Amino acid sequence: MERIGRYTLSLQNAHLSAWASVVGKKESEGPLGSCFDLTCEDDSLGQDSWEKAEATLQKMALETALGKLAMKPEGLDFVLAGDLLNQCISSTFGLRSFGIPLLGQYGACSTMALTLGLSSVLVDSGAARRAAAVTSSHFCSAERQFRFPLEYGGQRAPTAQWTATASGCVIVENQGPVQVKKVTFGKIADLGVTDAANMGAAMAPAAAETLLAFFHDTGTSPQDYDAVYTGDLGQVGSTLLCQLMEKEGVNLQPVHQDCGLLLFDREKQDVHAGGSGCGCSASVLCGHILPLLAQGKMKNVLFAATGALMSPTSSQQGESIPGISHLLHLTPAEG
Amino acid sequence: MERIGRYTLSLQNAHLSAWASVVGKKESEGPLGSCFDLTCEDDSLGQDSWEKAEATLQKMALETALGKLAMKPEGLDFVLAGDLLNQCISSTFGLRSFGIPLLGQYGACSTMALTLGLSSVLVDSGAARRAAAVTSSHFCSAERQFRFPLEYGGQRAPTAQWTATASGCVIVENQGPVQVKKVTFGKIADLGVTDAANMGAAMAPAAAETLLAFFHDTGTSPQDYDAVYTGDLGQVGSTLLCQLMEKEGVNLQPVHQDCGLLLFDREKQDVHAGGSGCGCSASVLCGHILPLLAQGKMKNVLFAATGALMSPTSSQQGESIPGISHLLHLTPAEG
Repeated sequence: MERIGRYTLSLQNAHLSAWASVVGKKESEGPLGSCFDLTCEDDSLGQDSWEKAEATLQKMALETALGKLAMKPEGLDFVLAGDLLNQCISSTFGLRSFGIPLLGQYGACSTMALTLGLSSVLVDSGAARRAAAVTSSHFCSAERQFRFPLEYGGQRAPTAQWTATASGCVIVENQGPVQVKKVTFGKIADLGVTDAANMGAAMAPAAAETLLAFFHDTGTSPQDYDAVYTGDLGQVGSTLLCQLMEKEGVNLQPVHQDCGLLLFDREKQDVHAGGSGCGCSASVLCGHILPLLAQGKMKNVLFAATGALMSPTSSQQGESIPGISHLLHLTPAEG
Repeated sequence: MERIGRYTLSLQNAHLSAWASVVGKKESEGPLGSCFDLTCEDDSLGQDSWEKAEATLQKMALETALGKLAMKPEGLDFVLAGDLLNQCISSTFGLRSFGIPLLGQYGACSTMALTLGLSSVLVDSGAARRAAAVTSSHFCSAERQFRFPLEYGGQRAPTAQWTATASGCVIVENQGPVQVKKVTFGKIADLGVTDAANMGAAMAPAAAETLLAFFHDTGTSPQDYDAVYTGDLGQVGSTLLCQLMEKEGVNLQPVHQDCGLLLFDREKQDVHAGGSGCGCSASVLCGHILPLLAQGKMKNVLFAATGALMSPTSSQQGESIPGISHLLHLTPAEG
């Protein structure tokens, strides 16, 4: 491991050996519907609460990823996980039965990059032989907690995003078809956006800061990459991000993709500004991005998940929405 | 860094260079009252909400620790932080202004050991030159979120604990008077306790599992240590822990101390089973344990913070309370 510049870590030995994605019905009907490992026709997953359904998504994602390696949970030294629910109960209850040391993480919708970045650092340093990064979100548990109970039938703002019912899990070890070459962990960025129905705008400055830090540290620019994926900025946040980068003299637009815009068809699926939630970037990473890298169809990718670190309480108290973004540089494995 | 046995990491180069504790009025009137760096006479800390007051505790703790090293925030590569509030808003809003890359953690009341353990691993591996571990809790924000608004005047069960109004911050780097020799990250343990007014009982099995894993991995036993501190098991959980260890043939009782029992005087301060909250073990670590190690008054200490990973929602849905415990082996710096 080596530090490059102020914010970036260069890794030698962190490979992704297996990954799995689990999505709900609406996600399976989107443009990437055929890419995911498992699709749940019933978003309750046979559970008696949305929270338990979301926990089940994480359980299925980890089981599926382990299954691809024919590995038992004991093969993992750590699982790094987190989610949007209060006290991260999807992770706790979803992963409780596995008996793997748990490093609980909180990064809101940036969680996939946070858990995967830290897992990669732990494997690269020898602290772990193998670690799993897991996260999830569920439309119904998120609506109830952050906005309104579904039964209320609240109107959604045009800038609002649709929380994905989805989970992703990635296993990191010293071999595998995809490599984590670099990691940049982000700082909080807060330009004062207070509209909780416009999280894309709140998170865009964080994505811009982390991307600029990475480009500066590595002396590279967007055209050096096949694609730069952000987590879930949606339409509003993606436009803002490209404008913010433009102001800094960086032309991101030609290579920029956003997981929130890839997961759903905005024309047909009524998701307003796009998808969001920890499970959005997690499922797009595991269902779409990592397979393209493993197949050699992309050679050089940045994955910058973004999170909005507010709570309903902080918003009610008039606070603005702090954003954060963590970034991974991914390539097919060398040699 | 070296793995010892199944669960333990042995570190060579993780030192604690500075630490700071900030507590509220009641904590300052307890047996350790004179040990803390800062005492707030007014638990609102001049803020207009308890949540903002708690965020201010974290801000003060980090500022005070940095001040002891005459260091600017830019001296830190990472801050690892988390707390009990929904979406960890004490950490987000408390640390927002520092501009340090933030790795958000969630471990409930085990957070001090989680953040400090991971910070130590990051420094030992070279991923960070310097990292800070921070956490907090506040009686009033916790009561409101987890139990009842204070105005309701709810009765407290005899097994209930008193959430500490406190914060602790520790800075890790390659030099300093205290050394982190080993870290053991724990698994979820859940023996089916469902009483959210008896968290000590819910967390005791996790503490037992992590301690047994550490003793097994290192071939040591309690008498090899000056003291074994648990986080906030309180009276009920501490008794249970010693019984659980006894069943496994390990006599913990002579060296066992619990931060939740050290922070308050149970006879005089009406805290029922003892103190709790992320800030409880954090402030006792920073105000009491680390100074004793730095002064050479103790040579060999285990610090095993414990967390109850439930939420009000999971308890309302009938779920039991999963516990977790992460452990650090601390000594005065060598040489």
